[in-house]
Amino acid sequence: MRSDQRPQNAPLDDDELSALDAHWRAANYLSAGQIYLMDNPLLRKPLEPAHIKPRLLGHWGTSPGLNLVHTHLNRLIRNRDLDALCIWGPGHGGPAVLANAWLEGSYSETYPNVSRDEEGMFRLFRQFSFPGGVPSHVAPETPGSIHEGGELGYALSHAYGAAFDNPGLLVACVIGDGEAETGPLAASWHSNKFLDPVHDGAVLPILHLNGYKIANPTVLARLPETELDELLRGYGHEPLHVTGDDPRQVHQAMAAAMDTAADRIRGIQQQARSGAADGRPRWPVIVLRTPKGWTGPAEVDGLPVEGTWRAHQVPLPAVREDAGHRAQLESWLRSYRPEELFDDDGRPRPQVLACVPEGPRRLGATRHANGGLLVRDLPLPPLERFAVPVDRPGGTRHEPTRVLGNLLQAVMAATADRRDFRLVGPDETASNRLQAVYAASGKAWQAQVLPADEDLDRHGRVMEILSEHTCQGWLEGYLLTGRHGLFSCYEAFVHIVDSMVNQHIKWLRTSRALPWRAPVASLNYLLTSHVWRQDHNGFSHQDPGFVDHVLNKSPEVVRVYLPPDANTLLSVADHVLRSRDQVNVVVAGKQPCFDWLSLDEARAHCARGAGVWEWAGTEDGTREPDVVLACAGDVPTQEVLAAADLLRRHLPHVAVRVVNVVDMTRLMPREDHPHGMTDLEYDALFTPGRPVVFAYHGYPWLVHRLAYRRHGHPDLHVRGYKEVGTTTTPFDMVVRNDLDRYRLVMDVIDRVPGLAARATGVRQAMADARTRHHAYIRAHGTDMPEVADWTWDH
Amino acid sequence: MRSDQRPQNAPLDDDELSALDAHWRAANYLSAGQIYLMDNPLLRKPLEPAHIKPRLLGHWGTSPGLNLVHTHLNRLIRNRDLDALCIWGPGHGGPAVLANAWLEGSYSETYPNVSRDEEGMFRLFRQFSFPGGVPSHVAPETPGSIHEGGELGYALSHAYGAAFDNPGLLVACVIGDGEAETGPLAASWHSNKFLDPVHDGAVLPILHLNGYKIANPTVLARLPETELDELLRGYGHEPLHVTGDDPRQVHQAMAAAMDTAADRIRGIQQQARSGAADGRPRWPVIVLRTPKGWTGPAEVDGLPVEGTWRAHQVPLPAVREDAGHRAQLESWLRSYRPEELFDDDGRPRPQVLACVPEGPRRLGATRHANGGLLVRDLPLPPLERFAVPVDRPGGTRHEPTRVLGNLLQAVMAATADRRDFRLVGPDETASNRLQAVYAASGKAWQAQVLPADEDLDRHGRVMEILSEHTCQGWLEGYLLTGRHGLFSCYEAFVHIVDSMVNQHIKWLRTSRALPWRAPVASLNYLLTSHVWRQDHNGFSHQDPGFVDHVLNKSPEVVRVYLPPDANTLLSVADHVLRSRDQVNVVVAGKQPCFDWLSLDEARAHCARGAGVWEWAGTEDGTREPDVVLACAGDVPTQEVLAAADLLRRHLPHVAVRVVNVVDMTRLMPREDHPHGMTDLEYDALFTPGRPVVFAYHGYPWLVHRLAYRRHGHPDLHVRGYKEVGTTTTPFDMVVRNDLDRYRLVMDVIDRVPGLAARATGVRQAMADARTRHHAYIRAHGTDMPEVADWTWDH
Repeated sequence: MRSDQRPQNAPLDDDELSALDAHWRAANYLSAGQIYLMDNPLLRKPLEPAHIKPRLLGHWGTSPGLNLVHTHLNRLIRNRDLDALCIWGPGHGGPAVLANAWLEGSYSETYPNVSRDEEGMFRLFRQFSFPGGVPSHVAPETPGSIHEGGELGYALSHAYGAAFDNPGLLVACVIGDGEAETGPLAASWHSNKFLDPVHDGAVLPILHLNGYKIANPTVLARLPETELDELLRGYGHEPLHVTGDDPRQVHQAMAAAMDTAADRIRGIQQQARSGAADGRPRWPVIVLRTPKGWTGPAEVDGLPVEGTWRAHQVPLPAVREDAGHRAQLESWLRSYRPEELFDDDGRPRPQVLACVPEGPRRLGATRHANGGLLVRDLPLPPLERFAVPVDRPGGTRHEPTRVLGNLLQAVMAATADRRDFRLVGPDETASNRLQAVYAASGKAWQAQVLPADEDLDRHGRVMEILSEHTCQGWLEGYLLTGRHGLFSCYEAFVHIVDSMVNQHIKWLRTSRALPWRAPVASLNYLLTSHVWRQDHNGFSHQDPGFVDHVLNKSPEVVRVYLPPDANTLLSVADHVLRSRDQVNVVVAGKQPCFDWLSLDEARAHCARGAGVWEWAGTEDGTREPDVVLACAGDVPTQEVLAAADLLRRHLPHVAVRVVNVVDMTRLMPREDHPHGMTDLEYDALFTPGRPVVFAYHGYPWLVHRLAYRRHGHPDLHVRGYKEVGTTTTPFDMVVRNDLDRYRLVMDVIDRVPGLAARATGVRQAMADARTRHHAYIRAHGTDMPEVADWTWDH
Repeated sequence: MRSDQRPQNAPLDDDELSALDAHWRAANYLSAGQIYLMDNPLLRKPLEPAHIKPRLLGHWGTSPGLNLVHTHLNRLIRNRDLDALCIWGPGHGGPAVLANAWLEGSYSETYPNVSRDEEGMFRLFRQFSFPGGVPSHVAPETPGSIHEGGELGYALSHAYGAAFDNPGLLVACVIGDGEAETGPLAASWHSNKFLDPVHDGAVLPILHLNGYKIANPTVLARLPETELDELLRGYGHEPLHVTGDDPRQVHQAMAAAMDTAADRIRGIQQQARSGAADGRPRWPVIVLRTPKGWTGPAEVDGLPVEGTWRAHQVPLPAVREDAGHRAQLESWLRSYRPEELFDDDGRPRPQVLACVPEGPRRLGATRHANGGLLVRDLPLPPLERFAVPVDRPGGTRHEPTRVLGNLLQAVMAATADRRDFRLVGPDETASNRLQAVYAASGKAWQAQVLPADEDLDRHGRVMEILSEHTCQGWLEGYLLTGRHGLFSCYEAFVHIVDSMVNQHIKWLRTSRALPWRAPVASLNYLLTSHVWRQDHNGFSHQDPGFVDHVLNKSPEVVRVYLPPDANTLLSVADHVLRSRDQVNVVVAGKQPCFDWLSLDEARAHCARGAGVWEWAGTEDGTREPDVVLACAGDVPTQEVLAAADLLRRHLPHVAVRVVNVVDMTRLMPREDHPHGMTDLEYDALFTPGRPVVFAYHGYPWLVHRLAYRRHGHPDLHVRGYKEVGTTTTPFDMVVRNDLDRYRLVMDVIDRVPGLAARATGVRQAMADARTRHHAYIRAHGTDMPEVADWTWDH
């Protein structure tokens, strides 16, 4: 290890320092060039307006700092032959990461038309933030990245997700001081309490304090250093400071900090892996304080720019029109001495590349950032081992998520050596009744353990922290680096990650169009403790709108499943755990639920996604039914079956068809979603011309939004959650939202032509039952026996 | 000040200690009673199954800690005559806060049928988490609360919001150690960098470490105390520890900590208000470590409960069926010695009430928690001062949000002394072009200031932190305590607070039904930097789905406005800033936009919410138009006007009606939303039977979801954002999503019966223009002149 033989604070000799500085200058030159130039990339001619892009779109401010980090990561990786990945949090630094990838050659390997020569440099510059080109942030298009730098907040949780179960990997993570103000980032510092130094890799956070956000100073940059150190130590880290604006001094300090950090990480890991670890380690963090827009224009039009928020975006805005600005840009670009950095063909000179690692060690070439190259199929056991026996529909009840827990336990056990499956959740694994998994893996925990604790495990792969953001970020990082997982969450509170899932869907959508990105395992949500069964929690815990949210996004990526019982949940889970490049939302209950389908029936039903339950209806097959009772979701299915039961008893001459929908996207037109039914299929199921009474798990208008172009849409009547709730009984919840069996029967009576007149008595009986219900729960606090004890017994 | 005369660590004499303990025991008794009992509230008879609720729903674990805090806040308030409000973060502690409100009498004043006697105690117990009763969390129904304790994460930002501009107020804030793991809570610790000790009140965080969440230990409880102290000091606080499980010792320590905290707060405020302040103060934080479920069953069925996660919910689950459990419950309840606490009529004895403050000083009676009692109308200046002159439609352009900035500046100036208006945003005020406000108020900032900084102000009311969660939490706290505000946010990233706005809407919806809660100022969003103009940022910054999200929620509360130009934005802003108890979403652009309407026209148009722009169409009034071109949003309006221009030039015989929609909820059926049009109104505008081509700002299916029940819905054709984007030119964005003028003309040609055959040449010209566009942007990087220079000149 060369670093061990150098003075601690100045580990670089003159040659190495010059080489690192040359690399850094080259990256800075290329970053600025991308923002400004559409021609004359090497400044062989004096700069003219025609060389300047007509629209200047990009962010300079963060670039020099990112370039410094990349240069020094190169050195560290090369000196120590490290397997490393970097998360570039300040994503506005697209130009920097692209510049580095081009310098090291990984960019041209990924995009051969952007070659590592003058022609390629011309293209690199022109394509940046240009129509038909590449986005301005670090993005799926960027080699070496698993992290979009647009929204901010998720860098560190992504880094930990990448490090879990990657014992040989160092994940560097640059955190901007703007991003550090976000909640998700602030929460994710504590991820180190969940990082196992034995089976996981290391995360090296690099907090880059350049002092400003878009237009304001940042909080962390304006803390006294002692206070910042207290904060970082409170987060469980040991800070290493690199501060300055003199490049030579900063290079020495940065190299020293990188060496120290790498040494400490190696020490922590060696100790833990030799079994000598004692307590939770204090991992290093590098605090890098350099000016925003460092090496850019110091002043523009008489106002300070370098080192202020004015350097955030495009420091010289008028270079095309204003000769003074243009001269300033030219002198800025020439200050990097491009002629020293690039040869006559525009190729980086050997000195520039001296620090760059080889082959897959390069940050733009690591396979960890293209996780689809590494992912292996999950060893999924036969579902027969977990299925509940179903002799007849509704004869028994099970808690679907508890049954699923047994499957997850088997997956955990089967991946005990491979360690490529994790279950994440905000302290809800047991609440969601998945606790069988603990038999195969405990809960990851590196902090203090007390005698009363159960199932905590330094090496566990069940992840529980009361932060949906951290859960989501961990899982995204884990999946994008080639592993598998499931996020179990209370249905209402998954909205906390609405914006994160937006970004992940956008990432997958874009990745799917990039031939060099191999498909990764899907992001799978199990949403349970759902809207209909918030007996303990009431209105604040009732929101089924996540389905609506994801269905607004790219149809190639999103899938929504509402299995109505235990065996259909197993079948759906098996399917989503095998899938790739998707976001699968599975909504299922944890409360005892009737078992409607055997495993074979469940498989067949899930394969169709939606189908007639012949045994539940009263069609005789000779004519179209009088009414279709459709349902999606466990509670609506129960109410529809109970309504069908009432109709069968009270109005036996009404021909009822019962349709259950598992896959909501089946309702969409075929041209809008790959799972969408053709009109022929839809018509065969829903019989245009006949009334359809649809009991849906969530907001009822979602069904209309999916099916508005279908034949017979005017006859489609949907019941669902109307945002009416409180802490009450399960049946009262459906009554309050008009989703109950009695109301559904009334809906049928009101909608089947001619029936209302013939069924006034039955309709009144239904209304009476609702009245009886209200009185009963107020007196007893529980649902009346005719509801609570109802079973399907046909 | 009595506390100054007492020993520092044991400020309580025996009488006071006994009285505090009696109050605490009474609160504990009442908390447990609510969870378990539906009869025999004072245990006058031996406990029988019939006295036990059939469904045990509630959370015991956090209650004794909350009761301890409430008891000691009572003492502090009474001793020092403080004006105080408390945010109860661990909301599962509904029983505790209800118990305390009942004890102090504020509950019976709010709900006279729950009187402060045996009959009232019976009702207090029975109603809890019972059908028709009250929810299990702290909720709008709870007197003294502005914070729903369901979702977790927002306690501290709510507390700061309440404290801003309330210089005489102490806001205590209990933070559970579960909640402390969330991102929003973690971010909000830094709110103290924005708290002005001169004009703002104080926030006293009380971090309650009872060690466990639902089923896991908490991160903060398992840090060594030195590390936790570093963290809290790093957050800018000085920790005061209260640790123990011996009530007498904990009472002394808690009283001492409360006194010390109050003394320090007073010192900080006195120093700042006397002008002697030097730098940012270090505010106190109390760290309270007591066992989860303290004083409850130590063991149940052989497993430890008190002090473990098993105490989280209902520690004895089977009391109705299991005589052993029931005996244990009875002995637990009797351990509080209810006969010492309540008199023969069930009223709290004087000793129990000795610590309780008087009248509005009681935490359940403070007017700050019923902000509608305090709110004053905003002094809104006449819009004429800010309106842009419009001689003819489209003759000029303005940046709408910049124009709005002038209005906001005037509101800021007019509230300079009242200090009851704040503007919040995630470092985007200037980016969103509202910077005129800085002339009336700088940006709140208590941290270090450097010479290059601009517009930072220790007393500022513009709030900028790069945390949408913190912005939202601050504003909610500010509004619910009777003030006004506006949240300006990039459109895409407002999804970050999806879940928070859910909770706020639920809060308002519930509050509206409570006669004692007075209406508060609405929560107003200005969403800008919207989907169509992400020239710098591209796909990750493109998401117009927040509108879809809020429109799923209670229609009484939600409003959505898409003003198409500067004057309509002024009119909408004026309206929403006057409104009450709503969540108003205003989507408006910051880029130069045609001025279509004069102020008078804008007011009339906004009053209608949707209307025909006669000047833009080619109807002659003698017959129904051939087609309706509808639009909502600034960019769609521009494209529809440009399409109308093309139709006028190329197909002058087609009678076109142009309809602009400002208020999206106008499209909903009248019975579904108070702003919804009647069918008659809708038909008059959209002419059922004629094709409607609707250019909408966001996801197109939203319009279908709102209008699916309307006549003529099959003829409604909607264009909008189809989740297709990147960094490209503004016009390319609309082309990519088929929202451009050429496509709209093609849509008209395709939909007006018989027109396609007559207009093949025009249709081809439109298709050619799109092809021309693609070639042009690839060559030039800008939009072609025929688009960029287009103006409306009829």
